[in-house]
Amino acid sequence: MSYLGVGASPGNVPVYHETSLKVVDRRVRLAELVLRFVICGLGVLTAVLVGTDTQVREIFTIQKKAKFTDMKALVFLVIANGIAASYSLIQALRCVVSMVRGSVLFSKPLAWAIFSGDQVMAYVTLAAVAAAAQSAVIAKLGQPELQWMKICGMYEKFCNQVGEGIVSALLVSIGMVALSVISAFGLFRLYNGSNKGKSNSGW
Amino acid sequence: MSYLGVGASPGNVPVYHETSLKVVDRRVRLAELVLRFVICGLGVLTAVLVGTDTQVREIFTIQKKAKFTDMKALVFLVIANGIAASYSLIQALRCVVSMVRGSVLFSKPLAWAIFSGDQVMAYVTLAAVAAAAQSAVIAKLGQPELQWMKICGMYEKFCNQVGEGIVSALLVSIGMVALSVISAFGLFRLYNGSNKGKSNSGW
Repeated sequence: MSYLGVGASPGNVPVYHETSLKVVDRRVRLAELVLRFVICGLGVLTAVLVGTDTQVREIFTIQKKAKFTDMKALVFLVIANGIAASYSLIQALRCVVSMVRGSVLFSKPLAWAIFSGDQVMAYVTLAAVAAAAQSAVIAKLGQPELQWMKICGMYEKFCNQVGEGIVSALLVSIGMVALSVISAFGLFRLYNGSNKGKSNSGW
Repeated sequence: MSYLGVGASPGNVPVYHETSLKVVDRRVRLAELVLRFVICGLGVLTAVLVGTDTQVREIFTIQKKAKFTDMKALVFLVIANGIAASYSLIQALRCVVSMVRGSVLFSKPLAWAIFSGDQVMAYVTLAAVAAAAQSAVIAKLGQPELQWMKICGMYEKFCNQVGEGIVSALLVSIGMVALSVISAFGLFRLYNGSNKGKSNSGW
């Protein structure tokens, strides 16, 4: 008797199919969980990097201080990333609870809410990082045609730290876009699975 | 014999259900078509408003000219809206062809491509409008802490036209977000319909 023979039996094919789907589901759930925690961490990192960034320079006995509130785009970036971090933490905890309980998400309204939430967060974080990047480009290169001088020669440490914050914020928005795709997949599976007797749309 | 009695017959319920679904489908397809043409028009309007915007001022015999290429964010806005307009025109023509032929989209890869395309365009147009809006806010209000002076007092006509362009671009990105939702619905229907013998996922 051969093990290969078991796999070839027509009766076993759906079992094999269902098992492979469950493996894929488990991997997708794990990827979602890791991604949500990473986004939470990076969101906090962005908010801390940008929010605590200051530099004092002395020019002819006059002290000048650069801080993130000088640029409205950076304030928006800190707020957006703070919201994204909180949202991701709540969603990550939901993932942990459902994984520990082994429960399965069958509620279409909830799946739609998660998909919509991920989409809104992706749009908000992307808009914030685009606005901040635009300000950062002006600060770094200046806009001589408009007499907006570059300030990064003067506040080098301040600019570098903002730059690190923007890179981190960019990773947050890319992560949110990836999560939107994952939650779209989850929603499709749910619609797909509900017509098969809710057998293998387990997440 | 009563008409109400016909409605109550169990045999007629699926027919009624299918008919109402077809009505919804037709309305969604029409909304999609109208939205794609509106986005195409607004995209062209944005590109023309911003791309042709110039103003010459004379200050102490020196001529100064403001043009959209002075701000990199406006160049990005023109390019992004040009791409969005072209993309929407192609998609609108696809909608017209499928409506005229009465053909139904059953190809999952194509539905995924449309959904992904709409998503990418929504992200790109939103990032462009966020960056342009940030530049516009600096131009309008200035950023006195960084010695970036407002320029809209000097170039009022130029700024107003850019403002109109940004409003139009904002409508384009909101429209693209709405289209993403519509194409997500289309994709869900396709997954849903495919398990019912592909009977009512008609678009």
